[in-house]
Amino acid sequence: MNSTLYKAWLQYAPIEDRELAAAYSRQLGTIVVDQQQSRVANAAVQELKHACQSMLGIVPNITSEALNSSHLEVRIHVGAAAAAEGAAEGITEAMDRGRADTQLDPEGFTLVHSGQGQQEKLVLIGGSGKGILYGVFHLLRLLASHQPLTGLKVADQPVNRLRMINQWDNVDGTVERGYSGQSIFYENGRFTDNLERVRDYARLLASVGMNAISINNVNVHEIETRFITAEYLPTVAKVADIFREYGITLYLSINFAAPLHIGGVSTSDPLNEEVRQWWKDAADEIYDHIPDFGGFLVKADSEHRPGPFAYGRDHADGANMLAEALEPHGGLVIWRCFVYNCMQDWRDRSTDRARAAYDHFTPLDGRFKDNVLLQIKNGPMDFQVREPVSPLFGSMKETNQVLEFQVAQEYTGQQRHVCYLVPQWKEVLDFDTYADGAGSEVKKITNGSLHGMKYSGIAAVSNIGNDENWTGHTLAQANLYGFGRLIWNPELSSEGIAEEWTRLTFGNDESVVKTVCRMLMQSWPIYESYTSPLGVGWMITPHTHYGPDVDGYEYSRWGTYHFADRDGMGVDRTMATGTGYTAQYFEPNAALYDSLEDCPDELLLFFHHVPYSHMLKSGKTVIQHIYDTHFEGAEAAAGLLDAWTSLEGKVDPERFAQVAQRLADQAEHAKHWRDVINTYFYRKSGVPDDSGRIIY
Amino acid sequence: MNSTLYKAWLQYAPIEDRELAAAYSRQLGTIVVDQQQSRVANAAVQELKHACQSMLGIVPNITSEALNSSHLEVRIHVGAAAAAEGAAEGITEAMDRGRADTQLDPEGFTLVHSGQGQQEKLVLIGGSGKGILYGVFHLLRLLASHQPLTGLKVADQPVNRLRMINQWDNVDGTVERGYSGQSIFYENGRFTDNLERVRDYARLLASVGMNAISINNVNVHEIETRFITAEYLPTVAKVADIFREYGITLYLSINFAAPLHIGGVSTSDPLNEEVRQWWKDAADEIYDHIPDFGGFLVKADSEHRPGPFAYGRDHADGANMLAEALEPHGGLVIWRCFVYNCMQDWRDRSTDRARAAYDHFTPLDGRFKDNVLLQIKNGPMDFQVREPVSPLFGSMKETNQVLEFQVAQEYTGQQRHVCYLVPQWKEVLDFDTYADGAGSEVKKITNGSLHGMKYSGIAAVSNIGNDENWTGHTLAQANLYGFGRLIWNPELSSEGIAEEWTRLTFGNDESVVKTVCRMLMQSWPIYESYTSPLGVGWMITPHTHYGPDVDGYEYSRWGTYHFADRDGMGVDRTMATGTGYTAQYFEPNAALYDSLEDCPDELLLFFHHVPYSHMLKSGKTVIQHIYDTHFEGAEAAAGLLDAWTSLEGKVDPERFAQVAQRLADQAEHAKHWRDVINTYFYRKSGVPDDSGRIIY
Repeated sequence: MNSTLYKAWLQYAPIEDRELAAAYSRQLGTIVVDQQQSRVANAAVQELKHACQSMLGIVPNITSEALNSSHLEVRIHVGAAAAAEGAAEGITEAMDRGRADTQLDPEGFTLVHSGQGQQEKLVLIGGSGKGILYGVFHLLRLLASHQPLTGLKVADQPVNRLRMINQWDNVDGTVERGYSGQSIFYENGRFTDNLERVRDYARLLASVGMNAISINNVNVHEIETRFITAEYLPTVAKVADIFREYGITLYLSINFAAPLHIGGVSTSDPLNEEVRQWWKDAADEIYDHIPDFGGFLVKADSEHRPGPFAYGRDHADGANMLAEALEPHGGLVIWRCFVYNCMQDWRDRSTDRARAAYDHFTPLDGRFKDNVLLQIKNGPMDFQVREPVSPLFGSMKETNQVLEFQVAQEYTGQQRHVCYLVPQWKEVLDFDTYADGAGSEVKKITNGSLHGMKYSGIAAVSNIGNDENWTGHTLAQANLYGFGRLIWNPELSSEGIAEEWTRLTFGNDESVVKTVCRMLMQSWPIYESYTSPLGVGWMITPHTHYGPDVDGYEYSRWGTYHFADRDGMGVDRTMATGTGYTAQYFEPNAALYDSLEDCPDELLLFFHHVPYSHMLKSGKTVIQHIYDTHFEGAEAAAGLLDAWTSLEGKVDPERFAQVAQRLADQAEHAKHWRDVINTYFYRKSGVPDDSGRIIY
Repeated sequence: MNSTLYKAWLQYAPIEDRELAAAYSRQLGTIVVDQQQSRVANAAVQELKHACQSMLGIVPNITSEALNSSHLEVRIHVGAAAAAEGAAEGITEAMDRGRADTQLDPEGFTLVHSGQGQQEKLVLIGGSGKGILYGVFHLLRLLASHQPLTGLKVADQPVNRLRMINQWDNVDGTVERGYSGQSIFYENGRFTDNLERVRDYARLLASVGMNAISINNVNVHEIETRFITAEYLPTVAKVADIFREYGITLYLSINFAAPLHIGGVSTSDPLNEEVRQWWKDAADEIYDHIPDFGGFLVKADSEHRPGPFAYGRDHADGANMLAEALEPHGGLVIWRCFVYNCMQDWRDRSTDRARAAYDHFTPLDGRFKDNVLLQIKNGPMDFQVREPVSPLFGSMKETNQVLEFQVAQEYTGQQRHVCYLVPQWKEVLDFDTYADGAGSEVKKITNGSLHGMKYSGIAAVSNIGNDENWTGHTLAQANLYGFGRLIWNPELSSEGIAEEWTRLTFGNDESVVKTVCRMLMQSWPIYESYTSPLGVGWMITPHTHYGPDVDGYEYSRWGTYHFADRDGMGVDRTMATGTGYTAQYFEPNAALYDSLEDCPDELLLFFHHVPYSHMLKSGKTVIQHIYDTHFEGAEAAAGLLDAWTSLEGKVDPERFAQVAQRLADQAEHAKHWRDVINTYFYRKSGVPDDSGRIIY
């Protein structure tokens, strides 16, 4: 637990530049802490102290007395006036320049350097303990990336209110779609004893600004159904307490059929009075143990999970019942929209899984209570390497929405391939829905501004487990880091986040920074290039979701088809001849996707069925595009290994070897992808490769 | 445990024909048992007594005194002279007409009726207790199928010496490739307490003449590796004792690396003296607990199981080491030939899994010790619905051989589809290898006669589990029954065995017998017709081996390909242009299979790659054959359900419903097979169906 693998981006590596270390030591040697402190702020100060010891070899003197000599002042102030009053010079300027409200947000902070010599000081003001926490981690990022503090004027606050991570951990110790070992929360049917690892996870999450976590799988099994009862709540409360110290609110995934299964009620009908009372009593019990409990995450009527449909009720009925129970306590219901017919007949081409969430939920707009949020996956299918953005975003103007990403690389290489997903997420956030005309980007829905929603935010499925390095592939740590940073502020660039993460993780050797950042930025396009082409998705081994199997889902009940035949491929989702899915978008997106001429190449096969000879905007035919990208992609994957190999000696041996092994596996597996996909389409189309490369 | 499902073919249903029952009661009311009795013979007499109670409502009087009145005499005699001496009239005639040696085989028996009135008697003479046991079950088959005993003159003995069942049961309670529930032997890492069920299994096996069983999976896991140690042997001995009572010898599957894993030896090298001594000591220990222990079943250097290759040794070295340890005790080593490269690169068309067993083992002919038997699967691949016979049969003239069938329907519908396999097995046994010229059928290799081998026989993977009806599908009981009967005497007809089984299982209503027999006889051709065509095999979902997935194994490491492209399909195994596999057969088989003109239709795609337009001997093109068989097969599967439905009221409701449900599932699933296969080939070939039926 003290390895470089484990410490991830909180390495706090010793700073060897003596001059810089001296300046930092002077500025941080004494920390004057405002008396009015919260537990979260204390945790922040302890983190700072620990980091100073590790990076500078000093133990800061922590005091509540104002000083004349160089020091760091840590204060909590509520509201703008208070922030200005008595604080160091430059705060107002920082707030003007920076991203803080004039009313300092409880999660916001200002961090300002002023004066020289004896007058030199650094002032961190938080809108609450959480502001202090985020400010400290901001400061530590600066230190770890060797940036001078002199002249610093920072004001910042998160853009998205709910910044959540979803654990798909099961109490048996497994993690659904987990690629990093077993759960850090559970083993053998019970909570683990190692709460120190949970605490370190809380530190990692807090360090990138996350403020909410659901700790059990959305598929809620037998024992987990009882987490909301007195039997398990004392233990859940212990976990909540750890996260609380890092400003993170705990949620539980619940089983909609809990009243029936564990409540002694003969139904789980959401309109049944006994059921409603059961949930109210359950909520009371929960809040007795966890006064700041976040609420429920719910997967209902999805993939065989129970829900309101069994009783002829709809999602609004179900969600509102739970919301009513949580409302007196200030809790939220996060209701997932991943609802579709998972028993589809592949022979039925009129049913389109991509349509399902929109068709299910838009008619319910306006019917959900204030404390219900709908959680919507970024795309209409399921975390493919390339999908259009879900048309649900912006389509429910009276409903709180949460965007769901997947940090776990379920369909993107399972942390055996490197695939830095921040650029993908950024495309989603920057996507203009046109819900209220131009400028209606998804990021304005997640931050609540577009339709002035009370609650909103972004959640993601976690990628961590009990592997020493948390994420299986050490480079996959960048996705957890990047998710937190991006949802804190979607205006950050993918490159900037990659660079931050690399410096914190591997240090400031410029060749390391440059190489790793380039590898990360190349990785998503590379992964896409050797896997399923042009937005068609899937072509992956059923169940495991690892490795190519072009027809694996073609004749299945999952609604995920490519319809490749000897002449062409792709899914016709147009209005005139297809499933009409394109009509779910606002104009001009609907027309764009509907048009064979205008549809972007990278999504062509998601929206259109075309012959292999169809000419792309790139000037290549579809079939030649498939061949080219797959040959190039496999070559580029090998290039990632070469790039990494050039860093030998510049990265500690343990992490060097770990990453090198994964990259070698990826390079080999990319060749398998290349050959399977190319062979499949060559056998089917009969079209030879223009360049005469080997296709089997 | 008293249901009709559970009792399988040992129903012993009351005989309602009063006249017949009276005759039987008279003939069996008193049983005169020879004083010189074995434990096996006693079990036989107890079985007879129990059956009389159940069928006739009488409790036979068992005595050792010779009588004058009607009775059954049960005697053991060794040798022909003894058999004749003092026995009833007609014994010599029975032995002349029947299948017994003039020297009565220890497993043989004669059953003769003679006299009238006071002189009437039935004499059962066994060559040993086992002969008595098989004679009693023969008698009980006559009773249950309501055949008169008057004038009976039967002499019989088994054709194959080793008649073995292999359990693929794991100590965790699972059964590898088990489709009938969990193991009856193990649960939760230990032997079950329910040895009564094991005893009933022994009765079922003995009733059809099986005389050997291996009780643990050939993939020997951690705990099972220790079955051969003092820790587990007392429990194994208890199980052996149960089987011993029914004339069945117990074997264990062993882990070749046991010395290394559990023996404290640093190697498992078969030429290492310490290792050899370890196995000798292990054998001594085993025989201390189980004096008549059968020996070891070994899967070595196959699918990642350890074996001699790790030490640069060959299969003969490995098998002979074990044989040497068992030899002083009379034990056998049954060494499986299922050895191939399971890490094949699908891109490499020169490697042919079908060749593997022959290529590995024929060079070793003559090197195996006398008490080693090579166990060879019926085909060169792995229990597909249609394969040629393995060319290993007859190719090792100085090596004991055992044929391996699979009663478990791994690739033939997993006991969710009905597939009566006796006709398939019979084709294998009747196949002429031409090893010593015409008339060198496989059945002459399994009975040891062709090359005068000391040991030989037939084994099969069991299909039973702890489902109430043993076999998942009640009609799958016919396969276990049929396997035993067929290997007792390969000259029995598939139809005859089906009729026997049906009468014993469902009674003697002629419409039931006729319908069920017809269903059974149709079932293998039907299953073949809607699954993979023309001998090409596979096209099945990887790992589970249930349901269609045409390309599921096409790009995998398992060596199981169909090479379908837009123009044609099949595997070229010819000498001139293919893998040369055909040359492993003796002439004229080699030439037959090698010739595109002569190769039988049903194996065409196993041996040749042909265009879809290739004209079959049937007068159809390959593609039209695919369409036709799949449309007809699905229709025929629905017809099975119709046929069964016509028996409502004639079969007890429990079994009627169980079978009806499975047949309904099969009919539905057959449509899925039909549509997936037809759609796949239509999309690939572009050739429309001549009859214009719906292809998706």
